[in-house]
Amino acid sequence: MVRVGVLGGRGYTAGELLRLLVRHPEVEVTAVVSRKELGEPISQVHPWLRGQLDLPLTQSNNVQLAGQCDCVFSCLPHTASAEAVGELLKLGVRVIDFSADFRLNDLETYEHWYQVKHPVPQLVGQTVYGLPELFRDEIRSANLVANPGCFPTTAILALTPLILADLIQSEGIIVDSKSGVSGAGRQADEAYSFCEVNEATSAYKIGKHRHMPEMEQIITRASQRATQILFTPHLVPMNRGILSTIYANPNPGTTLETWTECLTEFYRAEPFVDVVSHLPKTSEVVGTNRCVISVSRSRGRVVIVSCIDNLLKGASGAAVQNFNLMYGFPETTALG
Amino acid sequence: MVRVGVLGGRGYTAGELLRLLVRHPEVEVTAVVSRKELGEPISQVHPWLRGQLDLPLTQSNNVQLAGQCDCVFSCLPHTASAEAVGELLKLGVRVIDFSADFRLNDLETYEHWYQVKHPVPQLVGQTVYGLPELFRDEIRSANLVANPGCFPTTAILALTPLILADLIQSEGIIVDSKSGVSGAGRQADEAYSFCEVNEATSAYKIGKHRHMPEMEQIITRASQRATQILFTPHLVPMNRGILSTIYANPNPGTTLETWTECLTEFYRAEPFVDVVSHLPKTSEVVGTNRCVISVSRSRGRVVIVSCIDNLLKGASGAAVQNFNLMYGFPETTALG
Amino acid sequence: MVRVGVLGGRGYTAGELLRLLVRHPEVEVTAVVSRKELGEPISQVHPWLRGQLDLPLTQSNNVQLAGQCDCVFSCLPHTASAEAVGELLKLGVRVIDFSADFRLNDLETYEHWYQVKHPVPQLVGQTVYGLPELFRDEIRSANLVANPGCFPTTAILALTPLILADLIQSEGIIVDSKSGVSGAGRQADEAYSFCEVNEATSAYKIGKHRHMPEMEQIITRASQRATQILFTPHLVPMNRGILSTIYANPNPGTTLETWTECLTEFYRAEPFVDVVSHLPKTSEVVGTNRCVISVSRSRGRVVIVSCIDNLLKGASGAAVQNFNLMYGFPETTALG
Amino acid sequence: MVRVGVLGGRGYTAGELLRLLVRHPEVEVTAVVSRKELGEPISQVHPWLRGQLDLPLTQSNNVQLAGQCDCVFSCLPHTASAEAVGELLKLGVRVIDFSADFRLNDLETYEHWYQVKHPVPQLVGQTVYGLPELFRDEIRSANLVANPGCFPTTAILALTPLILADLIQSEGIIVDSKSGVSGAGRQADEAYSFCEVNEATSAYKIGKHRHMPEMEQIITRASQRATQILFTPHLVPMNRGILSTIYANPNPGTTLETWTECLTEFYRAEPFVDVVSHLPKTSEVVGTNRCVISVSRSRGRVVIVSCIDNLLKGASGAAVQNFNLMYGFPETTALG
Repeated sequence: MVRVGVLGGRGYTAGELLRLLVRHPEVEVTAVVSRKELGEPISQVHPWLRGQLDLPLTQSNNVQLAGQCDCVFSCLPHTASAEAVGELLKLGVRVIDFSADFRLNDLETYEHWYQVKHPVPQLVGQTVYGLPELFRDEIRSANLVANPGCFPTTAILALTPLILADLIQSEGIIVDSKSGVSGAGRQADEAYSFCEVNEATSAYKIGKHRHMPEMEQIITRASQRATQILFTPHLVPMNRGILSTIYANPNPGTTLETWTECLTEFYRAEPFVDVVSHLPKTSEVVGTNRCVISVSRSRGRVVIVSCIDNLLKGASGAAVQNFNLMYGFPETTALG
Repeated sequence: MVRVGVLGGRGYTAGELLRLLVRHPEVEVTAVVSRKELGEPISQVHPWLRGQLDLPLTQSNNVQLAGQCDCVFSCLPHTASAEAVGELLKLGVRVIDFSADFRLNDLETYEHWYQVKHPVPQLVGQTVYGLPELFRDEIRSANLVANPGCFPTTAILALTPLILADLIQSEGIIVDSKSGVSGAGRQADEAYSFCEVNEATSAYKIGKHRHMPEMEQIITRASQRATQILFTPHLVPMNRGILSTIYANPNPGTTLETWTECLTEFYRAEPFVDVVSHLPKTSEVVGTNRCVISVSRSRGRVVIVSCIDNLLKGASGAAVQNFNLMYGFPETTALG
Repeated sequence: MVRVGVLGGRGYTAGELLRLLVRHPEVEVTAVVSRKELGEPISQVHPWLRGQLDLPLTQSNNVQLAGQCDCVFSCLPHTASAEAVGELLKLGVRVIDFSADFRLNDLETYEHWYQVKHPVPQLVGQTVYGLPELFRDEIRSANLVANPGCFPTTAILALTPLILADLIQSEGIIVDSKSGVSGAGRQADEAYSFCEVNEATSAYKIGKHRHMPEMEQIITRASQRATQILFTPHLVPMNRGILSTIYANPNPGTTLETWTECLTEFYRAEPFVDVVSHLPKTSEVVGTNRCVISVSRSRGRVVIVSCIDNLLKGASGAAVQNFNLMYGFPETTALG
Repeated sequence: MVRVGVLGGRGYTAGELLRLLVRHPEVEVTAVVSRKELGEPISQVHPWLRGQLDLPLTQSNNVQLAGQCDCVFSCLPHTASAEAVGELLKLGVRVIDFSADFRLNDLETYEHWYQVKHPVPQLVGQTVYGLPELFRDEIRSANLVANPGCFPTTAILALTPLILADLIQSEGIIVDSKSGVSGAGRQADEAYSFCEVNEATSAYKIGKHRHMPEMEQIITRASQRATQILFTPHLVPMNRGILSTIYANPNPGTTLETWTECLTEFYRAEPFVDVVSHLPKTSEVVGTNRCVISVSRSRGRVVIVSCIDNLLKGASGAAVQNFNLMYGFPETTALG
């Protein structure tokens, strides 16, 4: 049994993570840390855990945590997460970090886009990006895995094989994403109150969203082609799910068939990526750890639809998939 | 032209009120007061006002307001509202108060249910309850009208005629109400965030909601029968609309036909109450100032469904209806 | 391994049932029958099954089915279900029937409320009502289990212990239920189209819903007290979940504490019924096989809130719970 | 008073149209035609009309209609609409046609995209496209106005001024649109049932939607530049509203400021187009006849967000705006 702890236990990603972990036959959850509702059972915050996990929420104390846990999942916000991660690694704990602190290659890009000083700059560039479909081997032996962002997961999985195979151009790509509201996390914010979000769709942070450089860097890292992406996120009135519509320019001589075949082959053995011939709905993947991808052609362009459950393949499902790799369990354990 | 001011201008009820007032041919909106976004145009908060009302939000100053306005609508929360109302009345301004501060008959009930000291106790019991269907004449000459609560509007309109006519018992009544989320107002509160409310229904404040004594007191006042009501509000994932399902014990010898005829007759000349023979949906009344009522019989009981748009007949529409009466305009002006 | 078949495989309850069955370690799904999309893989209809269950949909043929299956779950509509069930039983197949055909005690009530001739009248009154919390022993040895209706599950679980213990009166009960839309099944009907249901709440079939006699008969059967219930269902804009608000008259000398203690004790050992002290939301139980019950007191009445996921504890979860009992598997298998 | 008739009166666009027309001081609605619910009052279908318009639904009879109406709004589907329109024009009635039958320039494109024979081919290419912001003068004197499609309205208003001013390239444009469900019309279709659409986002008809050639033809007509557009529509779980995110390549030397200024100037005097500096939500325009446009720059591209209420500026509001022009009424009558 691997003893597991969770930092930031009240959030939606932590809730889904714990839902998966209590089903995992090789996991014992030994600590759930939170700033709020200290001492209350975690099942009060995430009621579906009642009777399965009633641990009281505890205060952050990394030394104590290191005594209780072999592996920690950090669902803390950026910078707060890096601080905890740095200490836990030193104490010999393996970490899966949900924040963006260790996803980018270089300090400069991080500090430019996040507008903060990085708390443990020495670790930046050393870590593994936790997308098993591209970095499976590195994940197996990693002590620190940077769990991918939700939007980047849809884009990186859809684009990397096509760029690697020189079927599409790596510049001039547009990713137009539609996300459910849980992506914004659990919070008291008028902008995310029901009446503001319900019966409304909006674009936000055009050209300013931090997942844009993440997409570019990871695809560049995986494909060795300098990749440039214009990313526009939208908020849609649903709890869960992301659908990204991706527009790219094909290389000459390529066709819908070659694009489709490339993706189908690349993911043939993958348990959690499906290349399909219909146009998928987000509801097909909600509640699963799958990414479903469909390719079309229109007006001479490649149009790819890629969708996931932002809380599972876009966060907690991916984290458990990474955990399974790190500890040598079958990759689909607790995710079936 | 009546010069009109609005206190608490950022809220949802104020937004709907201003939507109606800019259409009113006899109204000039001269001031909109708010604590937040001072100096910004009100049309930034309520975008449908753009080009029609771009007044900047101003700070509260009752003396100045009295110079600018003949009539003020207060959308402030309780106690804050009473304080402003007391001062404005002294300054000669007529007031329509959306808060509960002047709805109850007696100080003791108010202070028990609201758990506060009333700021202007001398006015309690002196004011008119702004339900035109029951108190039209008093409203015409009132300087202060207590605009009804949203849930009470559904219950009082459905029950009063039947109690007055001795067709049903005034005790043992149950009002089970389902409300859209705008009833909770515009606020940053985790409990009303999209993901908490969407795909969820819940009961709240069973036996503790402040609209329970309001229903009882007003029906008692209008019918002269001591009325007792068990009230259970529920939150339903929609922006607007209230549907109340009301259970009462019939008096002997009465039938579905006599109940229906009583309500039909009582509201025959009313422009905003419809007694219908089908079971209504809230979407029928959303966007209108109507209350739609339907009567059924089951297992020997009277079952009444009564529904309104909580922001219109349950708040701002009723307020404009009261305003029209106070100033002698046709009652349906700006409400058609 | 038990070989299992499903009739009516395209519906929402069948979809949830299959989601559970593919996780069940002792089940092999050998046939899924449907009138539509014959020959297509069931995973095309319920995409979360992709890669886990890709059986083609087959035409109804009871003899063939009896050769393939030890147990059949029928998700067919009433009368169609009874016909299939009658034949399958004769062929030695055990059946869990989701329809209402075998829930009621007597033919007369069935034919009055359903306005049809019963296709296999000789079986009426012989069958077991599949609510394990009340009829566990009978279920174990049954060849035909009548799976409970969704609304009745909330009411029967909340009321039966209190009536059995003589804490509340068995007459004069009101059950006011709010249901998500999946309760209406998968169908092309303007009344259930998105724009008709979204942003709307409505009551329907007041005094006429077929779950009313089901509630009364089963509580009467379990408690030996003649029970009378006024039942009002409502449609609420969400996919899943039922919340029933139940009003009953307490017997003299009883208190909130005695009611709560009675329910708590009754369900102490039950894995799927929680008696809680807060007011639950449907979202707490959606995705689980739980019924969550909370008791309050107001205006001298007992007010009980009882909620379930209509597709799980209200249909497919209950069915798997019954299946586990029938085959001697741990009752929570595939439901944890 | 202009005597007005409506064909296809049960639909959502007809409902909104009638909501506007009953408020119009110069309109008398004299006939509402429908295939279903014949003889029932139109207010039964659209309950907000109760007491304001209770005309019975009548069968289609163009001769009779020509006797009752000066102007007819056709909300019929394509081809059915063209047939009626052809006859009504001959009978001297002016027509505003909501269908696509007369929007395209040439028969070939129409018959290719709609896969039908056009019933009155001689009228194709003769008609006026009812977008007042571009074709106001032609509309004034037209006997037949082709009311624009909802998606095209967002794209044409956003793009035409920039193409006309040579600020952006007229090829390589992408329009990624997100629509509420009322755009699909009122219908019994499993695909548009609540549970299929709620909590789901999907792309549909990539490269195959009929509004793609409409966008291209009208922008080409208005700008005299051959325009090519890749259009991807998406379905989003809300009743009303369209938000289009539009990507275009700027011409050299142009900037965010020049694009914004161009649009601002072009629409300065327009009552129903707002160029704003924030990123708008669809809820800002729902219930209004406005198109709100916002321009951004990212990764060297022009990114425009354009949103409307699909039932108003995208259908019935535009139709009344056209009607006002055709009859010389102030353009904003009934639309304020």
